[in-house]
Amino acid sequence: MISIVLIGTGNIATHLFDTFLQYDMLNVLQVVGRQKETLNYFSQKTDTCLLTETITTADVYIIAVSDDAITEVSSKLKDVNGLVVHTSGSVPMLALANCKNIGVYYPLQTFSKGKKVNFRTIPICIEAENDENLKSLSFLAETISDKVYHISTEQRRHLHLAAVFVNNFTNYMYTIGNEICDEHQVPFDILRPLIKETSDKIATLAPKEAQTGPARRNDVATMQRHLDQINGKNKKQIYKILSESIQEKYGKKL
Amino acid sequence: MISIVLIGTGNIATHLFDTFLQYDMLNVLQVVGRQKETLNYFSQKTDTCLLTETITTADVYIIAVSDDAITEVSSKLKDVNGLVVHTSGSVPMLALANCKNIGVYYPLQTFSKGKKVNFRTIPICIEAENDENLKSLSFLAETISDKVYHISTEQRRHLHLAAVFVNNFTNYMYTIGNEICDEHQVPFDILRPLIKETSDKIATLAPKEAQTGPARRNDVATMQRHLDQINGKNKKQIYKILSESIQEKYGKKL
Repeated sequence: MISIVLIGTGNIATHLFDTFLQYDMLNVLQVVGRQKETLNYFSQKTDTCLLTETITTADVYIIAVSDDAITEVSSKLKDVNGLVVHTSGSVPMLALANCKNIGVYYPLQTFSKGKKVNFRTIPICIEAENDENLKSLSFLAETISDKVYHISTEQRRHLHLAAVFVNNFTNYMYTIGNEICDEHQVPFDILRPLIKETSDKIATLAPKEAQTGPARRNDVATMQRHLDQINGKNKKQIYKILSESIQEKYGKKL
Repeated sequence: MISIVLIGTGNIATHLFDTFLQYDMLNVLQVVGRQKETLNYFSQKTDTCLLTETITTADVYIIAVSDDAITEVSSKLKDVNGLVVHTSGSVPMLALANCKNIGVYYPLQTFSKGKKVNFRTIPICIEAENDENLKSLSFLAETISDKVYHISTEQRRHLHLAAVFVNNFTNYMYTIGNEICDEHQVPFDILRPLIKETSDKIATLAPKEAQTGPARRNDVATMQRHLDQINGKNKKQIYKILSESIQEKYGKKL
């Protein structure tokens, strides 16, 4: 059995907490927060305390707070013997260097408040400084997920950048599509099956192979028509740059 | 019962053909192609002929060919009394103006060769010049799909542009994510659950509400780190323009 102290009360902390509770082998001794009100949800099920109070002794301390608060929080844990990890995609493991045993426990998924997630399908990227700590983290990760990867700090920062493209920027493409529909009184719902199929394809196909559209087939006339009909400088520029980049990638002369 | 002549042998023609065959009320009398070899698949199940040969009489003629061939093909149908429609998102209905009865029958989905599709969930956008023709097209569309929309030529061209953003450009975001992973020996598979969740969210949430990431929260430090680590002028420019556009949309001063 692994005993855990969870520091943080946001989306990731809440989803991890709910998931850990489902496994007898994982024992969340305490949840630590900055403000009393944010601890209400957790205090119904386990011990809670403020960051300024006494943190209990555990095997693993999981820091699930915003990136810029990680170092400050870790300074409160510099004397503990347990393993101190953070859950961030973009913060180096060595941001925890003031602690004795350190690591990273990064679940790569987008979490929404109130929306249940199935951790078994969520990749967890772990990192540690020695085999023993890596073994503990592996156990903690494999207990809740079927997809555990050893990822270095260097790899993780690139993974996090890639995630911005496939998640944040993809969602922005949806937003632009939605805006174009709204401007011309077309229900955005018409596009939802296309959005679903576009991502479904990627489950079995490399995105490079799945590329279609005017830029891919170098259909200059359609691209020009599209540019003419786009309202707004930003959208026009985005259309242009993405189309040119696709044309370049697929070997069409500009 | 509606009798149909299908002109074209590509992805859309094939998927429509396979689907029409499942319904007793739809009778595909003939499939018309440019080359004999492309007709092999269809000739096992119905009559086929070349575009230069005699096209049979039917209630509806569906032109499912590439955009730039539509007008040429329609010129062969200028004397028929049946309804002549094309299946394109970006070609005006009036491209068929040399025919007597015209319309559009546009299934909005991305079709891959060999991958079965369930037409019941695919939106079909229809357009016609009078009620009688619209009624025929409604029947033809509602027989195979639960999502039928009356969409004008003007609306359709904007819908087609929106589809480029949510489908073609989204796929390109996946491609960039994949490239970043490959450059740094990270398996792209780690990102697949995130890709799925990003699109799943949109089934119930407006994309505007689902936006997350460094640009959304105006996290300038992370954006600068990302820009520093990106290899390649194109990717850097895409990251910059999309981030700035998101910052602007969500009211952050640049």
